[in-house]
Amino acid sequence: MSTFNCRVYYEDTDAGGIVYYANYLKFIERARTECLRNLGIFQNVIKEKYDLVFVVKRIRAEYCKSARLDDVMEIRTAFQKIGRVSFELDQEILVRGDIIFLAQVKLGVINNMGRPRPLPTNIKDKMVKLRK
Amino acid sequence: MSTFNCRVYYEDTDAGGIVYYANYLKFIERARTECLRNLGIFQNVIKEKYDLVFVVKRIRAEYCKSARLDDVMEIRTAFQKIGRVSFELDQEILVRGDIIFLAQVKLGVINNMGRPRPLPTNIKDKMVKLRK
Amino acid sequence: MSTFNCRVYYEDTDAGGIVYYANYLKFIERARTECLRNLGIFQNVIKEKYDLVFVVKRIRAEYCKSARLDDVMEIRTAFQKIGRVSFELDQEILVRGDIIFLAQVKLGVINNMGRPRPLPTNIKDKMVKLRK
Amino acid sequence: MSTFNCRVYYEDTDAGGIVYYANYLKFIERARTECLRNLGIFQNVIKEKYDLVFVVKRIRAEYCKSARLDDVMEIRTAFQKIGRVSFELDQEILVRGDIIFLAQVKLGVINNMGRPRPLPTNIKDKMVKLRK
Repeated sequence: MSTFNCRVYYEDTDAGGIVYYANYLKFIERARTECLRNLGIFQNVIKEKYDLVFVVKRIRAEYCKSARLDDVMEIRTAFQKIGRVSFELDQEILVRGDIIFLAQVKLGVINNMGRPRPLPTNIKDKMVKLRK
Repeated sequence: MSTFNCRVYYEDTDAGGIVYYANYLKFIERARTECLRNLGIFQNVIKEKYDLVFVVKRIRAEYCKSARLDDVMEIRTAFQKIGRVSFELDQEILVRGDIIFLAQVKLGVINNMGRPRPLPTNIKDKMVKLRK
Repeated sequence: MSTFNCRVYYEDTDAGGIVYYANYLKFIERARTECLRNLGIFQNVIKEKYDLVFVVKRIRAEYCKSARLDDVMEIRTAFQKIGRVSFELDQEILVRGDIIFLAQVKLGVINNMGRPRPLPTNIKDKMVKLRK
Repeated sequence: MSTFNCRVYYEDTDAGGIVYYANYLKFIERARTECLRNLGIFQNVIKEKYDLVFVVKRIRAEYCKSARLDDVMEIRTAFQKIGRVSFELDQEILVRGDIIFLAQVKLGVINNMGRPRPLPTNIKDKMVKLRK
């Protein structure tokens, strides 16, 4: 499991006084990026070297509680399944130890034409290390 | 079913050349707002008069294809279930007649303390009109 | 002068109850895009055909009043200067007839290497039509 | 001068392959928040205790170069003027030592009715410490 922290700024909140619901998807994407970087997987390199991009194919998310201005969020990321042209992650966001958001995210591997492409073996090998 | 159109601007896209995945949640929220307005349900009025806010509790989304810069999206919204303190919607986004994004969204009704509250009857009655 | 309307949704607001300050730059960018489209200038075409992108080089903005949830904004756009590799626009946002935001925006024309490039003559000719 | 670092994620970029222009305003707002926190000024506390919010009144920004996916930005913030109901900051963003963005930002102090209010003395005293 990989852990990433970030704070809630004004940009993240809405007139309801809490974090705008779409923004949790930004937070977990930041956490995925940092998780991949920690494994030595750099998306800008993958884009340039292999012409591959990871795109979200499916998301299931539960909004349990709300984060508010200035809260520090802890985002946990774990690989669940690693397939040939896709992989799945479990992600959760905690504030002061309480789970406030849960997501299962399926990502596909595509080339710049939008076609599914297999994960390069060296990248897959790195991901396997973080499987639950 | 309610229909709402909007265009993809630069703000919506990312370096992958397509719409950033979290932004589809913005588009469907715009469509929900316009759908509710068409039914005579105004969220700013509800917030001030009843001290109630609608918050997303759960979302299940499928990303089928990608929208690109300057695409016009058609967003369709239909009520599925209307409960006491929550309601569920089916939403889909189409570009040039193709479904590119599908979501099932469950919203809760809460007061400014974050507590679940029943939907006022007159609002519920309006929603029922748009049930599938 | 070109006019474009859009509504304030939850995504645009922040915990202060008003539109988040950076989002006015999104609104005026949408208005620029629609203004250019009305002149027959399509940025996706320009990107593909000429390999050119318009980028903001300088902005001066005054925040006079605030827009709030559900407000309809009227955004006015007028060309001020049209140079060889850049052009300048005056933009203003009104809510219920009051100016709430004013901006002077300078845009540069660059290729995909980030180098300044002259505006194609046929595009420049179209812009001149909307000069103050 | 206060310094704050953050990385460019997919959410920050656009189809031009670079950071979307409005998002630099998000970055400098994060840096202002962290700068204020380092001085012991917490905006959520100010909102609850004094019913005061800081709002941007004017911004002048120069976009010199572009940040790209995965870049780490260093954001520098310094107070310029500290008035009775407003204050001014100079902010700059650097990537690999190069200034890519410069802004002068004027903020006003308002209450929840949107009326200008004087800066509480203890807050003003803290800000003075970071004046250039």
